[in-house]
Formats: sequence, C-alpha cells, structure tokens
Amino acid sequence: MKKANTKAQAAIIVIGNEILSGRTQDVNVLFLSKWLNNLGVRVGEVRIIEDKEESIVKCIKELRDKFRYIFTTGGIGPTHDDITSKSVAKAFKMKYGFHKEAYVILEKYYKSGQFSEGRKKMAKMPLEASLIYNPSSGAPGFIVKNVFCLPGVPSILKSMVYGLNDKIIGGKKILSETISAHTVESEIAKSLERVQNQYRKIEIGSYPFFRLGKIGVSIVLRSTEKKQIDDCHKKIISFLKKKKIKIIER
Amino acid sequence: MKKANTKAQAAIIVIGNEILSGRTQDVNVLFLSKWLNNLGVRVGEVRIIEDKEESIVKCIKELRDKFRYIFTTGGIGPTHDDITSKSVAKAFKMKYGFHKEAYVILEKYYKSGQFSEGRKKMAKMPLEASLIYNPSSGAPGFIVKNVFCLPGVPSILKSMVYGLNDKIIGGKKILSETISAHTVESEIAKSLERVQNQYRKIEIGSYPFFRLGKIGVSIVLRSTEKKQIDDCHKKIISFLKKKKIKIIER
Repeated sequence: MKKANTKAQAAIIVIGNEILSGRTQDVNVLFLSKWLNNLGVRVGEVRIIEDKEESIVKCIKELRDKFRYIFTTGGIGPTHDDITSKSVAKAFKMKYGFHKEAYVILEKYYKSGQFSEGRKKMAKMPLEASLIYNPSSGAPGFIVKNVFCLPGVPSILKSMVYGLNDKIIGGKKILSETISAHTVESEIAKSLERVQNQYRKIEIGSYPFFRLGKIGVSIVLRSTEKKQIDDCHKKIISFLKKKKIKIIER
Repeated sequence: MKKANTKAQAAIIVIGNEILSGRTQDVNVLFLSKWLNNLGVRVGEVRIIEDKEESIVKCIKELRDKFRYIFTTGGIGPTHDDITSKSVAKAFKMKYGFHKEAYVILEKYYKSGQFSEGRKKMAKMPLEASLIYNPSSGAPGFIVKNVFCLPGVPSILKSMVYGLNDKIIGGKKILSETISAHTVESEIAKSLERVQNQYRKIEIGSYPFFRLGKIGVSIVLRSTEKKQIDDCHKKIISFLKKKKIKIIER
C-alpha cells in the first residue's frame, strides 16, 4: 500500500454494462461521494466496470488493500446479469450460497407462494457476509471485510446507505431515522417542507419506493442531534396521521 | 494483454477531484460512450481519478496496452491543478513544452495582450502530440499514441469529439433494442436467462424502473448482429405474452 493513497479512504466500483454503454447516467457516485464526505471519508477512485466475473474479481482484488472502504453498486438483483455477490465471494475465496438471515428476510417480505426462484437468488451471497438492510424493497445488500455491496437502483441505494453510517469510521456520527408510508411524494411534499423549515439542522430525505406493486415513500431524517430527530419524527408522524396516510414503518 | 479485453476497445479516464468529491455530476462518460458506440467502439472501463500526477501516470500506464483507445477528460486548462498534459508526457517519457501549432492557434485566438502566461500554459503538452481542434474555445486537446486528451467542460468536449470521427477505427455499429414491460425482474428472471443461454453473443441486460407510480423492467439487447437481435427480441416478446405481462415498449 502506497502512502499517497492513505488519505483517500474509499473507492467506488460501479458494476454495470448499462453505464458503460451510455444507456444509463450514473448518479450513485455523486450521491455516495457526498454521503461519505459528510462522514469525513474521502473518495479516492471510482471504477466503472463490466458485468463480468473476471473484471469484478480483479477490480476488488486490486482495490481492497489500497482503500479503507470499497463500495460496489449494481448486480445484486435476481436476473442472470446480476453476478456481483458471486464474484465478491470468489475474490475473497468465501463460500457462496443461501445466507440464512437474508433468506429469512426475503421469505418474510414476499407473501407465501411469491418467494420464487428468482427472488431466492437475492439471498445468495458470501455466507460470512453481514447484511445491509433494505427499507425500500426487501432484498438486502451485504458487507464482506471492507467491501460494501449495494444495489444499482439509485432510490433503493439511497434508502439503504444511511443505515451504514455507524459502520463508517469518520467524523461526528450522524444519526438517522426512517419513516416509510404508503403515499407519493407529491402528497407530502409541502408538509415535509414545512417540517424541514422548522428543523434546519436535520437533513430530511424523501425516497420513493415500490413493494409488490405498491408505491410508497421512505422519509429519512439525519442529524447528529438525537433530541431534534425525535421531535421532527413526531411532527412527521403527526401530519401523516392527519392525512390518513398508512405508515408502514417508523 | 488478455483476450477478454480485446472486444472492449476503449477506456475513459475522468480526471477530477470535483467528481470524486460529489461536487459535480459527471456527464462526459455517458456522452463519450454513446458517441463511441455509434462508431462501433465498446467502452470496457471507466476510471475516475484524482488530480495527482502520480495517479494519472499510473492509470495511463495501466490502461494504454489493454485498450485500443484511451480518452481522458479534464485537467487541460490553465490553472495549477490542470496537470493532465504534463502527466501524459511523463507516462510516455516524452518531452513536455510549448507545442508550436498549439501556440500559434492560441496566439491567434486571443487578442494581442490577452495571451497571458496562464493561457500560454494551454499550449504546453507532449511535443510529439497531434492536436484535437477546439471550435468553441480555442485551446486544443491532443493525441499521443492511443491516448486522446479532452477537456472536462461538457459543452467544449462535445464540440471537439466530432472532429475525431475519422481517427477512430471502429467495428460494426453496436445495435441496441429495448423492450419495456410492466413486471418485476424476479417474474422474468428464469425465462430471460433461458433466452440469454440461447443467444450467447447478445448482451441482455435487465433494468427495473419506476415511472409515474408504475413499476416495470426494461430489457436491453445489445449486439452488432441485427438478425440475432431480431430473433432474440421475438423470443422475449413471446414469453412475455405467454406470461400475460403488459408490454409497454418494443
């Protein structure tokens, strides 16, 4: 490991032919970089690579010792082109298979009879991995050593990373709370803005999601101040109730 | 050089701390990838690196033999942090200094008395370089061996690349077809994998989307072979219809 790289503490690996082909504009790099910066972690390099096992394994092996944290985005879904989990297992020579906790989460998430083969695949990962919980669409990401594997869909990725704040060693800890509700953003935008204006030190994020064909919004509150988050949380729950919006999670 | 990389013919190196810090959203990768695809050149890897001589030299040395073309963006302006030209010269052990033709172009471009030291710096590059003309702001980019150095400002970059079309030897144009349907990935994963196994030369990607409150999946087929794409397309439409999945776009 070279000294020049010690300050740059994180690298991001974007896994996806859709970015390399120019079909899709990546936005996760910007988001992750800002988030990491807020935690006092500098991003030193980003690589965008193909959906190929050989490329993924090689890239992880090259970067994992050079940076304190590695984040991957993309390739953890149910289809044939989702090969990140398998490739990460290979890079670390770990066993790949059904992860017990992930399997239980997905089994609970999908109604009986809906937990199909494709969906089961999302529970396959390095067996030693610890999970990154997914408040918006069930399927978890995972952590292996210093490698954090996240999905490619920006709204889902965003809803997941705040749960990682306490796993990153950076500056002052930023606390986060999530409220999920069956609604659309336009329905709550004004009320949410009003709360935001009252609590300027709290970063309130709003992330639409879809679950089994139902749409919803996850409202994420971020701050270093516990008391303020609690007050703000109450205000949001209160306006959701007034609007008769169904709260799924709080 | 590994065989696996010969198809992927270009790499892009984005040089810029502003992208790594999350301050600026990169849009050049998307633009260059699309432009190269149209010329029949596949982008196999992108790296976003710091404005550091060591990083730039290392990155160019690593990638120049693996890809037919290397494109760099950023770092060819007049300020102290623009170090791409010098670093490229170093990577190729070429002399760095005032490039005669570039100097003449810039001298003409700026009115008398306005051709300052900073602006003169933009005429400094590897002496053996050939120029990439800049119809929008004067300062040229340059080519050294297989490395094409472009600016970071998207509008300027765009105005320059079309002049390069006759310098890029591409293969067959990479064709792409998209089928979008109201479904979820896990519903079609198995059938899609079956089609992928039948058509190994077609790159089939599956991308969930969320549009106006409705969820769906875009299936993207990419190949240089029109006939194969058409056949593959038919197979996918057929299984979607069998599953009674609503096709939005085909």
